[in-house]
Amino acid sequence: MEKRVYNFSPGPAVLPLPALEEARRDLLVLPGAGASIMEISHRSKEFTAIIEAAEANLRRLLAVPDDYHVLFLSGGAQMQFGMVPMNFLRNTGKSADYILTGSWGNKAMEAAATQGNVRAAFDAAGTNYNRLPESDELDLDPKAAYVHITSNETIQGVQFPSEPEVGDVPLVCDSSSDLLSRPVPVEKYGVLYACAQKNLGPAGVTLVIIRKDLADRSPDDLPPMLNYKAMADGKSLANTPPTFPIYMVRLVTEWLLNEVGGLEKMAEINRKKAALLYDAVDKSEGFYLPHAEPDCRSIMNVPFRLADADLDGPFLEQAAAAGLAGLKGHRSVGGCRASIYNAMPVEGVEKLRGFMLEFCEKNR
Amino acid sequence: MEKRVYNFSPGPAVLPLPALEEARRDLLVLPGAGASIMEISHRSKEFTAIIEAAEANLRRLLAVPDDYHVLFLSGGAQMQFGMVPMNFLRNTGKSADYILTGSWGNKAMEAAATQGNVRAAFDAAGTNYNRLPESDELDLDPKAAYVHITSNETIQGVQFPSEPEVGDVPLVCDSSSDLLSRPVPVEKYGVLYACAQKNLGPAGVTLVIIRKDLADRSPDDLPPMLNYKAMADGKSLANTPPTFPIYMVRLVTEWLLNEVGGLEKMAEINRKKAALLYDAVDKSEGFYLPHAEPDCRSIMNVPFRLADADLDGPFLEQAAAAGLAGLKGHRSVGGCRASIYNAMPVEGVEKLRGFMLEFCEKNR
Repeated sequence: MEKRVYNFSPGPAVLPLPALEEARRDLLVLPGAGASIMEISHRSKEFTAIIEAAEANLRRLLAVPDDYHVLFLSGGAQMQFGMVPMNFLRNTGKSADYILTGSWGNKAMEAAATQGNVRAAFDAAGTNYNRLPESDELDLDPKAAYVHITSNETIQGVQFPSEPEVGDVPLVCDSSSDLLSRPVPVEKYGVLYACAQKNLGPAGVTLVIIRKDLADRSPDDLPPMLNYKAMADGKSLANTPPTFPIYMVRLVTEWLLNEVGGLEKMAEINRKKAALLYDAVDKSEGFYLPHAEPDCRSIMNVPFRLADADLDGPFLEQAAAAGLAGLKGHRSVGGCRASIYNAMPVEGVEKLRGFMLEFCEKNR
Repeated sequence: MEKRVYNFSPGPAVLPLPALEEARRDLLVLPGAGASIMEISHRSKEFTAIIEAAEANLRRLLAVPDDYHVLFLSGGAQMQFGMVPMNFLRNTGKSADYILTGSWGNKAMEAAATQGNVRAAFDAAGTNYNRLPESDELDLDPKAAYVHITSNETIQGVQFPSEPEVGDVPLVCDSSSDLLSRPVPVEKYGVLYACAQKNLGPAGVTLVIIRKDLADRSPDDLPPMLNYKAMADGKSLANTPPTFPIYMVRLVTEWLLNEVGGLEKMAEINRKKAALLYDAVDKSEGFYLPHAEPDCRSIMNVPFRLADADLDGPFLEQAAAAGLAGLKGHRSVGGCRASIYNAMPVEGVEKLRGFMLEFCEKNR
């Protein structure tokens, strides 16, 4: 078998090796099923046990209150960009507030604008999305259908350390790139959603945690697949769900519970990993330049530029040659980005830090 | 490793063993990628090669004309139940014709009814969905937005041997349980869609083959994920697609091309498998009762009842003990159902036939 690299891809991203190894072991025959996990009915007792375990693991890790549904849906976070306004904005006569701290929040607002009125309650475009709103900068509509935030902007590396105060309006959050990276007070949210391909599992399933009274408000004039209430009533099995991705979510959440020891511990490790890289950037005396302001630096995605942009190419090439892959930054920010999700081991980050220090030393 | 059974599950269903074996071999490291297929970017050169190969294989197998898009979408066939009317019925002032030959056609029509006016252009409910319309029974609206058929009704085992004549109205087809089982004249369709978990791959990806001029008609007031034009413009990569299921589609279509030798050969094998079972039913002198009329018997799903319903239980138990799994019929038809998709080997069907003959002999 070829060697595995340290994979800093922003997503689909590195998965815990024990989860991959168990999936490989059982790929032809899931124990007791006589067939692959990919070949068994979503209504079989074996798959029922898997989806129930995945939900139970998530409820335990995130301390999800009983008055929330935990749904496994399809279509990625971008399908939620549409489903949220289809269910809660369209035909309400209200508008929805979007707090824009990066590229994904903008995409979410654009999709919502196809369904009704939207407002930017804050927009950090003026500083190229490197910061969060000050409390007096939030222009919230107390009658809004909901307030939408992106808890961690994957491209800009801007993360909310805690929830903004939004009063009685339901808070909707795209938590695609930081859900399960740290504890979250789920009770502060109306809807919390995340695609799987960062910290949860492979691409193809999207986790939606939604307050039951909100799901009950879904309108009747939506096809069942786009209606939160219908999907909740069917317990994510109103149609055939993406069974293999859900199986992987189960394995990944088991790793988090049993090998890592929960989200407090995971957050501690993630903070340590992020600190190793931000420290290398800060100590470089301007050789590496950070993107986000210090108070909102993401512990999941660390974008940085080389002050001498001509060195971007050699940096990325030499990193790849050293087994450090996926470090190219998004074109809208440029430079480099290290995505250090849960499954990226500390050793991988230490190796990257060592490489950064050495590259700086040689090329400054 | 535990033994693999012969898996007659209606879906998710049996997959070709060589595809599963290749997936297992490369699960931790996709050659050249240094990471699992589940861990690499959907924009990486490795995944680009995979999705392009999957599309090329499908175009070759189905002889898809150049004026059709081949899209890999999320949400299963049931998401298409909603997307089709959202894109082509809503706000048109037209109605849509549904030809109802089983349970899934009804589900498709119900979902469409949330978006606009629908008509049953034929409904075989009166005979419990065991037949197709005679040509003089089709009550088609020449101004319909589209005509929808279900080419193979998985539950009732009713299959169209060829396309009904629908004039100039676009023909939309849910081909979930028979696409890739036989050659199809794609040029007769406006939209041809199929979930993967029968003949294409694992659950989590849905194939949509759509005429380009129809996709161009998608309205602007839909979120991009639900808009055929937006998904076609993004070449199925407008968001992160379900990468692992698409990878499996590539492996399955390679098996079809290289090991089976294409859809003519596959259809020949499938007809042979189906004949083995229908023959056992017909020869049983009323011990086994078929569901569908002979002229529309599915070559993919073979539902049958035991005339003595008390024998259903023992039949299913003894079959399972003999390594013949997944034979329970759907509750709406009762009895048994053998789903014999492409990946079910002839030997599996021969074994089931032998079991049926023996069980009949012992219990008649």
